[in-house]
Formats: sequence, structure tokens, C-alpha cells
Amino acid sequence: MSTETTLIEPFSVSIDFAESVMVDPDNHNIRRASTMSGYYADDEALEQLIDEGDDPLHYETYEKHVPEQYGHLLFCISKIQPGVVGEEFFMTKGHYHTIAHTGEVYLCLQGEGLMLMKTSVGEFRYERMRRGQLVYVPPYWAHRSVNTGREPLTMFCVWPADAGHNYGDIATEGFPRRVLLRDGREVIQ
Amino acid sequence: MSTETTLIEPFSVSIDFAESVMVDPDNHNIRRASTMSGYYADDEALEQLIDEGDDPLHYETYEKHVPEQYGHLLFCISKIQPGVVGEEFFMTKGHYHTIAHTGEVYLCLQGEGLMLMKTSVGEFRYERMRRGQLVYVPPYWAHRSVNTGREPLTMFCVWPADAGHNYGDIATEGFPRRVLLRDGREVIQ
Repeated sequence: MSTETTLIEPFSVSIDFAESVMVDPDNHNIRRASTMSGYYADDEALEQLIDEGDDPLHYETYEKHVPEQYGHLLFCISKIQPGVVGEEFFMTKGHYHTIAHTGEVYLCLQGEGLMLMKTSVGEFRYERMRRGQLVYVPPYWAHRSVNTGREPLTMFCVWPADAGHNYGDIATEGFPRRVLLRDGREVIQ
Repeated sequence: MSTETTLIEPFSVSIDFAESVMVDPDNHNIRRASTMSGYYADDEALEQLIDEGDDPLHYETYEKHVPEQYGHLLFCISKIQPGVVGEEFFMTKGHYHTIAHTGEVYLCLQGEGLMLMKTSVGEFRYERMRRGQLVYVPPYWAHRSVNTGREPLTMFCVWPADAGHNYGDIATEGFPRRVLLRDGREVIQ
């Protein structure tokens, strides 16, 4: 935990609910398909998507800067494109927080999907997301969002600014279950 | 700061964007006009409102329970009715956090208003709220919401669960400025 908390000026920022974007963010992070190498069961299908789709947009986040200290809060808009890699729905990499005992609030603004959650000892849960659905990801739970719909899945997220992101452990461990489109239906396998 | 963080199960809750309410909250707190005694410049007008309006609804919050510990996040829907007390727009009491160096994120879902903010040494700022506008209330800043519109002002709020509420200091200090309806126009005085 950081031991100082910087005094900063209040500010505001606009979120365009119709377009599901943050207007004038400090960071607009774009993850293309090629950044997802190793995350899907079907590597070949991912390679094909990258080659044939000219490395298409996969998901993106919009953020504002605040000091990454105890007491501050980070927030973002996270937007995942619809689609499949082989039979697996598009998803985020997923992460623990570096300070593992910090949670996150996700409020779904658009689309349909699932929030997959796991602990470091292998417990697995999921919650369904649709417009207006809020998912509470408690401290200790790694989390990954999956877009199971036909439009972008857009979420508004808030988490403690000192939490940090730990992607490395999920890159190694993966998640216990995958979300598939099989015979036109969603399957959690 | 609390020193332990309890592991709990993930959960989700629905927010009805059309009605601007949380479905199935753990707490639905209602503040009627009579709870606002001493907060408005015109005490007599408040008494009249209470008497003639049968102590009408002033503002309300919808919350879910999570442990009030470092790493958890509390969130609510806060909804302020439109109206004036004398010439002063309806507002919340306003508060610091008990752990003063903790911030809060407000995302406006409906209506129009102002977020008034002050520090303990008297600095004053405000930000305008309308649908889609997010106000970042940084650590140390006391905050009060004011409904300057003709419909309810509804906000989605997230803050660190260990922050606590300190209403007492604002009850004593008040805010440096008031927001008035004068000759049909908003005046920040």
C-alpha cells in the first residue's frame, strides 16, 4: 500500500453513452488480435484472424490519469468487439491485481457477456453482464470479460488506484473454463 | 486503514437505467425534507415545505453491502428530487470521508446539477453534472450534489469501502457557496 495520497484538483470527463466511449481520455489503449497470442484454445484460428482481418481491433480501454496511490480511484471504459476465435468468444486477457486484495466494480453499459472470475486456488465463478448489470469482483478474484453477443460489450470499471495489474499469472494459469459458441449456442466449458 | 480484507463471493446487481434505481438493494436509504434542518439558508421555507408537503422525499440512496475494509469498494445509486427551498436548489447534506484521503467517482445517469467540492482549508470548486458526465472527487475534498434541473438528478457512485462518512464537519462548516434559482436562472453565490 502506498503511504501518501496526493491532493489534486477535481475534474470531470464525458462518457458518451450512445457511442460507449470516453470523450477526451488521457489513455486510449487498443489491443489488436495479435496481442492475444496464447490466450485462445485455437492458436491457428487466431493466426488466421490476424492474417485475414489485417490484425483487427479486439478490445480497447479509455482511461483518465490519477495518482496510483491509496485513496485515489482509477476508472475506465472497456469495450470488447464481438466475434469468435475458432469457437471461442472474444475476451480480455484477464488479470489479478498486483495488490491481490483489491476489488473492482464493473457496470455494463452495452452488449451481452460474462465476467469470469477465479481465485489463485482455482475457485471459479461467473456472472452475466447486460446493460445495467453491475458485477462486483471482490478482492483476490482474477477476472476476464467475455463478449457473447453480436455488438460490442462495453463496461464502466472502477478500482483502487494503488491496485496495479498482474497479467502474468493469468498468462501462465489461464482460466478453468472457456466460453464457446457451439451449434449457435453459448457453452461454458 | 483496516488491516484485513475478507474474501467474499462475487455477486451482481441490476441497475434499471430507465427508472434510475437499483433493483434489490441491501439498503434503500430515504432522506425526507425534515432531515435537512439547518442545511438551507431559509429555515422557514424548509419548515413550510415539510408542513405543506407532508415531509416529502428529498433524496435517496440504494446500496449493496460489502465489508468496509481496504480493498473492497462500496457503490450506490444516489437520486435527488428536483425543487427549491426558498430560492435554494435541493441538495445533499454533503460529507468528507472519515479517512479524509479517499476519493469518490460520480457518474451522472439522469438529470442536471452541480457537484460542489471543498477542502478543509476552504478551497472551493464545482463541476457540472448531466447524463454521461463523470466527476472525479479526489481524496480530501468534501462533496455535495445539487439538483438544478426539473427531473431527479441520479448518480452512480463508487468509493473505497474503508472510507467512511463524516457528515459532522459539513453540518458545522457548511459550504462556501450556495446554488440558487433567482429570476428563473441558476446562480452560484
